[in-house]
Amino acid sequence: MLPIDRLRERFLSGETRALAQSISLVEDSAREAARFMRPLGAPMTLPRIVGVTGPPGAGKSTLTARLALALLEKGEKVALLLIDPSSPFSGGAILGDRIRMHDLTGRPDVFIRSLSSRGSLGGLSAAAIRVLRLLEYCDFSTIILETVGTGQAETDVVEAVDTVVVVTVPGLGDDIQAMKAGIMEIADIFVVNKADREGAERTARQIGAMLGLQEGKQRLPVPVVQTVATTGQGISELLQALDRHSADLTISMELKGRREKRWQKEFDAYVTSLLVDDFLAWAQGSNAEVAPHGRHGAADIYGLAEQLVAKYYAERTKRDAEEN
Amino acid sequence: MLPIDRLRERFLSGETRALAQSISLVEDSAREAARFMRPLGAPMTLPRIVGVTGPPGAGKSTLTARLALALLEKGEKVALLLIDPSSPFSGGAILGDRIRMHDLTGRPDVFIRSLSSRGSLGGLSAAAIRVLRLLEYCDFSTIILETVGTGQAETDVVEAVDTVVVVTVPGLGDDIQAMKAGIMEIADIFVVNKADREGAERTARQIGAMLGLQEGKQRLPVPVVQTVATTGQGISELLQALDRHSADLTISMELKGRREKRWQKEFDAYVTSLLVDDFLAWAQGSNAEVAPHGRHGAADIYGLAEQLVAKYYAERTKRDAEEN
Repeated sequence: MLPIDRLRERFLSGETRALAQSISLVEDSAREAARFMRPLGAPMTLPRIVGVTGPPGAGKSTLTARLALALLEKGEKVALLLIDPSSPFSGGAILGDRIRMHDLTGRPDVFIRSLSSRGSLGGLSAAAIRVLRLLEYCDFSTIILETVGTGQAETDVVEAVDTVVVVTVPGLGDDIQAMKAGIMEIADIFVVNKADREGAERTARQIGAMLGLQEGKQRLPVPVVQTVATTGQGISELLQALDRHSADLTISMELKGRREKRWQKEFDAYVTSLLVDDFLAWAQGSNAEVAPHGRHGAADIYGLAEQLVAKYYAERTKRDAEEN
Repeated sequence: MLPIDRLRERFLSGETRALAQSISLVEDSAREAARFMRPLGAPMTLPRIVGVTGPPGAGKSTLTARLALALLEKGEKVALLLIDPSSPFSGGAILGDRIRMHDLTGRPDVFIRSLSSRGSLGGLSAAAIRVLRLLEYCDFSTIILETVGTGQAETDVVEAVDTVVVVTVPGLGDDIQAMKAGIMEIADIFVVNKADREGAERTARQIGAMLGLQEGKQRLPVPVVQTVATTGQGISELLQALDRHSADLTISMELKGRREKRWQKEFDAYVTSLLVDDFLAWAQGSNAEVAPHGRHGAADIYGLAEQLVAKYYAERTKRDAEEN
């Protein structure tokens, strides 16, 4: 038995350590993910996947922890996936997030994992989507995917979930303005966290007004929920809003559309990685120059790339023709 | 004469409208960018490229406008490139940013352009890097690239510039913590903006302390500058810090390394797009099924992708062998 088959067996038996190891495998390589998951067939159950996003300082981690605790109290089995754009230099993770999760650690009904960016092209969101698929083979009823930051990679990820919760706080200045363009329109539920602060009502009204402008765009209604994650205030309202959205998604048939969008992203990313991997394997094998150096490199990067790809195709065709 | 050649001629004559059109061309397609820029050869001058990043609400746009004005006063010719992760649904841009730039519009010595994300894989940062190259063929002395948000795509972009300015404000709560992991270590200069607010000194000290932890990691010193962008306070200190960093980069030979990193990203992105474009052209031509639909698609996305890519290679080899 190959190590990957042994790991798959342990994974299927529900061993937590095997789950953690399987996630590492699936996260690191699309090809290994395919090798690991293809024999599993279709997942038996499709858990609810909730994305939590918003600007730094909005209290997403505390809110996520509260939400998870509330779901656990209802008897759910929960997985938390923290998307962690770690430092491009040192790879350091966010200690604060880990600390806030301490009420959750050690419980058998919750699984927590953070995924770090490796800086690869489209890497983080593609890896996260593969891990979401892996988690679908476990018996979690809800998966919460929390993203740090408000950038494009994060937007890509939240587009792959069933329900998007956008978290903000009162008085973050230009924040509402920035969100309007960035992620306002992907919100299924808005949360104004730290609602015990001055200006919470005003912020909630502003968001409501902006959401009003979007009515008639064939969207489900987007509730604005005020919470104080540190005390738990508003969490039951957030849970209700989540359940309502899940029901709405199913009734409107939109759930199917969102899942197919996720599958399409997964498919496209895997096709791209197969094409690029094959090219890189060739480049390594033939000692091809893949770095545009010096003044000449700066001048004709595009020409060098075109020549290299043409050479790749030619040698590939020659090799394949000889093999046949 | 082909339209692209006519556009290139107008671009080379310094026509502003031709520059705007050329940017659209270069932004939209890596292949068109190659067709447009290859005949240009190496850029005559390499402008200083400054990236401005930080969380929403930090006042990046106002600071960028102030910085540009100060450079213009010194007789520089400046280009502003605003990286705008527009809404994935409506493509709407951030109006606020446009308004703040109004002191700059209409001047002949400044060029302002925003780039929007199109949601394509690695699209935004790859497009931005192509546009940076295009701007190197103009006679700008400084290019300022401002990013909205703190996500991975933005981090990718700022990694491609010469000098990274990270902007924050006093008392953004968890922000410092988030930045520590996300972008703290890519900062060449730190700005605490809105420094007339309470807690500015404390925030600056916190940042200084965290930077101190990184000493000895073979980094140039990272100054922390306090500014009030709305009044212009601290802008001359920021200018000094920028000039100092440019000088340090040149002396330490790190400038060359940063530029080669940018060229490498450009090269890798173009190779990937060539490979993917060829595949997509084949898929379209042969009516291949590239959407994993329904229950079966969900179950075996990886298998479908592998079969499709294998079919592509086989048909490609057959076609090329016949042509030879």
